[in-house]
Amino acid sequence: MSGIVVQTIERAPIDVIDALAQCGVATVHEAQGRTGLLASHMRPIYRGARIAGSAVTISAPPGDNWMIHVAIELLQPGDIIVLAPTSPCEDGYFGDLLATSAQARGCRGLVIDAGCRDVRDLTEMAFPVWSKAIFAQGTVKNTLGSVNVPIVCASAAIHPGDVIVADDDGVCVVPRAKAAEVLKAAQAREANEGEKRAKLAAGVLGLDMYKMRERLEKEGLKYV
Amino acid sequence: MSGIVVQTIERAPIDVIDALAQCGVATVHEAQGRTGLLASHMRPIYRGARIAGSAVTISAPPGDNWMIHVAIELLQPGDIIVLAPTSPCEDGYFGDLLATSAQARGCRGLVIDAGCRDVRDLTEMAFPVWSKAIFAQGTVKNTLGSVNVPIVCASAAIHPGDVIVADDDGVCVVPRAKAAEVLKAAQAREANEGEKRAKLAAGVLGLDMYKMRERLEKEGLKYV
Amino acid sequence: MSGIVVQTIERAPIDVIDALAQCGVATVHEAQGRTGLLASHMRPIYRGARIAGSAVTISAPPGDNWMIHVAIELLQPGDIIVLAPTSPCEDGYFGDLLATSAQARGCRGLVIDAGCRDVRDLTEMAFPVWSKAIFAQGTVKNTLGSVNVPIVCASAAIHPGDVIVADDDGVCVVPRAKAAEVLKAAQAREANEGEKRAKLAAGVLGLDMYKMRERLEKEGLKYV
Amino acid sequence: MSGIVVQTIERAPIDVIDALAQCGVATVHEAQGRTGLLASHMRPIYRGARIAGSAVTISAPPGDNWMIHVAIELLQPGDIIVLAPTSPCEDGYFGDLLATSAQARGCRGLVIDAGCRDVRDLTEMAFPVWSKAIFAQGTVKNTLGSVNVPIVCASAAIHPGDVIVADDDGVCVVPRAKAAEVLKAAQAREANEGEKRAKLAAGVLGLDMYKMRERLEKEGLKYV
Amino acid sequence: MSGIVVQTIERAPIDVIDALAQCGVATVHEAQGRTGLLASHMRPIYRGARIAGSAVTISAPPGDNWMIHVAIELLQPGDIIVLAPTSPCEDGYFGDLLATSAQARGCRGLVIDAGCRDVRDLTEMAFPVWSKAIFAQGTVKNTLGSVNVPIVCASAAIHPGDVIVADDDGVCVVPRAKAAEVLKAAQAREANEGEKRAKLAAGVLGLDMYKMRERLEKEGLKYV
Amino acid sequence: MSGIVVQTIERAPIDVIDALAQCGVATVHEAQGRTGLLASHMRPIYRGARIAGSAVTISAPPGDNWMIHVAIELLQPGDIIVLAPTSPCEDGYFGDLLATSAQARGCRGLVIDAGCRDVRDLTEMAFPVWSKAIFAQGTVKNTLGSVNVPIVCASAAIHPGDVIVADDDGVCVVPRAKAAEVLKAAQAREANEGEKRAKLAAGVLGLDMYKMRERLEKEGLKYV
Repeated sequence: MSGIVVQTIERAPIDVIDALAQCGVATVHEAQGRTGLLASHMRPIYRGARIAGSAVTISAPPGDNWMIHVAIELLQPGDIIVLAPTSPCEDGYFGDLLATSAQARGCRGLVIDAGCRDVRDLTEMAFPVWSKAIFAQGTVKNTLGSVNVPIVCASAAIHPGDVIVADDDGVCVVPRAKAAEVLKAAQAREANEGEKRAKLAAGVLGLDMYKMRERLEKEGLKYV
Repeated sequence: MSGIVVQTIERAPIDVIDALAQCGVATVHEAQGRTGLLASHMRPIYRGARIAGSAVTISAPPGDNWMIHVAIELLQPGDIIVLAPTSPCEDGYFGDLLATSAQARGCRGLVIDAGCRDVRDLTEMAFPVWSKAIFAQGTVKNTLGSVNVPIVCASAAIHPGDVIVADDDGVCVVPRAKAAEVLKAAQAREANEGEKRAKLAAGVLGLDMYKMRERLEKEGLKYV
Repeated sequence: MSGIVVQTIERAPIDVIDALAQCGVATVHEAQGRTGLLASHMRPIYRGARIAGSAVTISAPPGDNWMIHVAIELLQPGDIIVLAPTSPCEDGYFGDLLATSAQARGCRGLVIDAGCRDVRDLTEMAFPVWSKAIFAQGTVKNTLGSVNVPIVCASAAIHPGDVIVADDDGVCVVPRAKAAEVLKAAQAREANEGEKRAKLAAGVLGLDMYKMRERLEKEGLKYV
Repeated sequence: MSGIVVQTIERAPIDVIDALAQCGVATVHEAQGRTGLLASHMRPIYRGARIAGSAVTISAPPGDNWMIHVAIELLQPGDIIVLAPTSPCEDGYFGDLLATSAQARGCRGLVIDAGCRDVRDLTEMAFPVWSKAIFAQGTVKNTLGSVNVPIVCASAAIHPGDVIVADDDGVCVVPRAKAAEVLKAAQAREANEGEKRAKLAAGVLGLDMYKMRERLEKEGLKYV
Repeated sequence: MSGIVVQTIERAPIDVIDALAQCGVATVHEAQGRTGLLASHMRPIYRGARIAGSAVTISAPPGDNWMIHVAIELLQPGDIIVLAPTSPCEDGYFGDLLATSAQARGCRGLVIDAGCRDVRDLTEMAFPVWSKAIFAQGTVKNTLGSVNVPIVCASAAIHPGDVIVADDDGVCVVPRAKAAEVLKAAQAREANEGEKRAKLAAGVLGLDMYKMRERLEKEGLKYV
Repeated sequence: MSGIVVQTIERAPIDVIDALAQCGVATVHEAQGRTGLLASHMRPIYRGARIAGSAVTISAPPGDNWMIHVAIELLQPGDIIVLAPTSPCEDGYFGDLLATSAQARGCRGLVIDAGCRDVRDLTEMAFPVWSKAIFAQGTVKNTLGSVNVPIVCASAAIHPGDVIVADDDGVCVVPRAKAAEVLKAAQAREANEGEKRAKLAAGVLGLDMYKMRERLEKEGLKYV
């Protein structure tokens, strides 16, 4: 099952991808029916990054980062590397040299359900990473994995070419074929939010704005 | 047991509350006999906030934030929302719209033994949150909980109207009826600390300042 | 076994220690054969510190920080306190008063497989700490431990006088007797890295730079 | 706040307590509105025990079991010891000697949000324990705690004299004053369950037995 | 995305399924290229069960077991229910009444990345469950999920109709379309193992049986 | 640093080892000053085993069990294999074939800070294992580690030839050179315990037997 490199993958249109980045993780997640979030242990190594890109996926053995080198050759501008180890691992698969190489090919960031190191350098380079751990533990290059195959990363099923959206709230995956539709729904949500925010800021209660009082009463809520 | 909203709660005097915020979590915790801390997994979404306020408590089902809307109506300036799910959960119950609404009513922050989202917006709004997770996972509004009932939040028993103190060290609860007494003890500790700090900075050893050598010897400490 | 204080320990030369700090954790860890890392739960209380120093070790009972006072007397400029509790604990053994005292004696930081508090003050003082938790829980001074004995801290075996290197990537220990040799290897690695980085930034692939293609093919990697 | 021993506590009637044991944790928890469960990390050291008793509570420092000796003097037949450390700890506070002493006084078991040891002996003695860990780590007797004060144990608020119910599903607390009322509700649930079980065993669907089809349709469930 | 019930799914032949159960989790996992394992936190509620069956999948909201009732209607003899909550949850979705109902329809067991209760009854009924937690926490029936849609359960991607194999080692999923092929590979492995086991029992070393000495030497292994 | 196999190690006398097994983990741990315990996550795969043996240590890469084959050749009757991965890992390094081979050489069990599989077979073979996880995840044989070098396993420093004691309470290591002395202290403790147990069973209080009342009073314990 491993040892496979799929060289050609389909990607969503770059303007759709960029617009999804603008919407952010929480909005995109809601817009696709509250699906697609990666687990909450996936944290950014620094705050403030807000990206989207096409997933180049890696399935790698624990403690072995060989396949990242293989994947980098396949990167196109606008891509995000997404790595899932074949069993739980927090080793530091990725550091500043790999980031330099990936960045040189237009890669926008890394999502890895394992560890990452050289975080000071990565921060200075503005190469964002969402990872399970910050850990300097070195890896080897002895066992094959696969590139651009379907993976499960941090509890989310991800196919190569899916759109990854990542910001301070975490990481969300949008199936490639639904990217345009999800974007539309996300933008509709956003259009809505400005007005809501203004009302709430003016002191209107959610109870009234969302007309919740009747349903709460019907469910039996008791004010005492 | 659920589906109860207590509308009126007693609060500690606002000047006592504000003075407790100045003392900070570690000092307040020590001043009340090393009690009242919430578990260490309660972390601020950004550094530097230092608040105190009266607890408006929420007991909410997992993945359901309906009761937050109910609680917001009851907020008074100087309050802090404190939410405990009825079973372990890290969903993102709270984001920028709820924060806008809470802030409009004078709410000083949120303490939640679950998840929080829109942390970039919350940081910009200067609405501080201490939470168990940052997670964009959306919630529903289908099942009742209760507001202003006693809860256990992150291993601490909290009653509505208790004083919550929160800073970079975490979160501490002070029973409302003891707030003034604890403040006094906390301020006494603080008065003490300046002098101690000066001595230690000048090179005086704790061993001497606290007269520990004799007791250490008596306990059998061996220098080799 | 406890209740022992070893007063005199050997230390590595200060220039070797300072040079190891410049190399950083990831490089030093690689240079000594991928050994010596402390577990990934050891995180800095603030970003940006980058230190090395000689370990003054403490074995302390859970929830009892008495031995820190004993250890401070033994500190020399350039030392780092390394504390391991005798069983898992996340109490706040260390705060701003102890930091003031340690800093007055030239101590460069603290590595503690437990909790730390007053992190706002410690940040302002620029006294770096790597810990398992930030937790205000106070401790007592009732039970003896030991100072300058071999310990296991966050899964790493540490002897008094070993060199501790710590930065944003975590913490690494270098056996004292190997410090000079490890430094040499680390500096050799660094000299190498500049050239590699330049090539990668220019678009050369790791696959080619490290001549991996042949071995990948031999292992059976299939491009499809 | 610590160093207090409350000698006299009220208990629920023993026949109510014994009948609650017969109902079991899941039923009792449901019968009191889905409240009172201790966290799921509280596991029995052996399977098959099913007990209820009056809580004699202990608040103990981490790694210090002195207060258990104090509590044992206060035990009456039908009691259960409930211990919460003042900060997270998994040390082995309790082993076969303490169990022998407790059992001699009619104690029915131990609930401890920390560790336990000698589990082979405890199993042979038929002295059941629900704990967070099995860990042989020894403790000291140097620092005071309190006995028969309100505690939070494994996320549940427990008062001395409350009824503890424990079986293979975990541990539940019933407030003393509500014990009789909760028992009634629990027994009503049980009376109900026999008939339901028979129907389900005969192949009747829950969808029909609970008349769920209409509400599912109304909520929008789509069969495809 | 939720609120969907797929009524008809394809299943693998029952004799293939039963033969996979005989092979066991470890062998099946190896036979399909070391893929398909669910995370190690999925533990059996009792030892000794060894089953395989067709997955009837459920995606359920946290703390809401409504969809289990919906799924039970769709069960056929030889099926296994596989439930993944839409966000991390350890509530007790499943107990003896649901087990009675499922068993009445020929269901062989439950795999749930959440909690389970009534484990004493389930053990007596010989209804095996692999779960993340044993927890009596009750659930509600207020929010829709989906049945027989693709899910990620305990880090494994599972489609309805896939074959689930479960024993004391954990849980493994085999894609339906590959079930026969995987069975063949698994049986080939097993045929092999008897001979290997006999040799090893007789004292032959793996080093010799697998001819490892040369490769170890080539990699640089040093005997000292 | 890796790729080393030390062929000859010193062992403690077998009668001392066997006598330590009789004392059990808790007693041995106390007898050597409350040191030597492995972390509480090390659990037996079945209850009732009670062994001691000489440690043959393995340092292995994550997900690679090659070195176990190397270690088996070095086993002598009475040995216990002790494996620590070089970074956190829960893969199933060990199953029934390796157990057959180890058992054929007189090995008494395995202590592994990672995963183990085929637990049903291992139980039937009466080959005891203490592990961090039960997990069927297969491993490779591609990267060297070391055999019979000092390791840190589950937070304990272990040297080859040290005595490992393991039972239902967990695992404890006794430095080889101190084995006889620790045994003596452990047996003295045991001799003591019979009398204590009899007194406690007869209703004598620990408070009186250990003469604690005076010290409790002096510390300020208040009975109310």
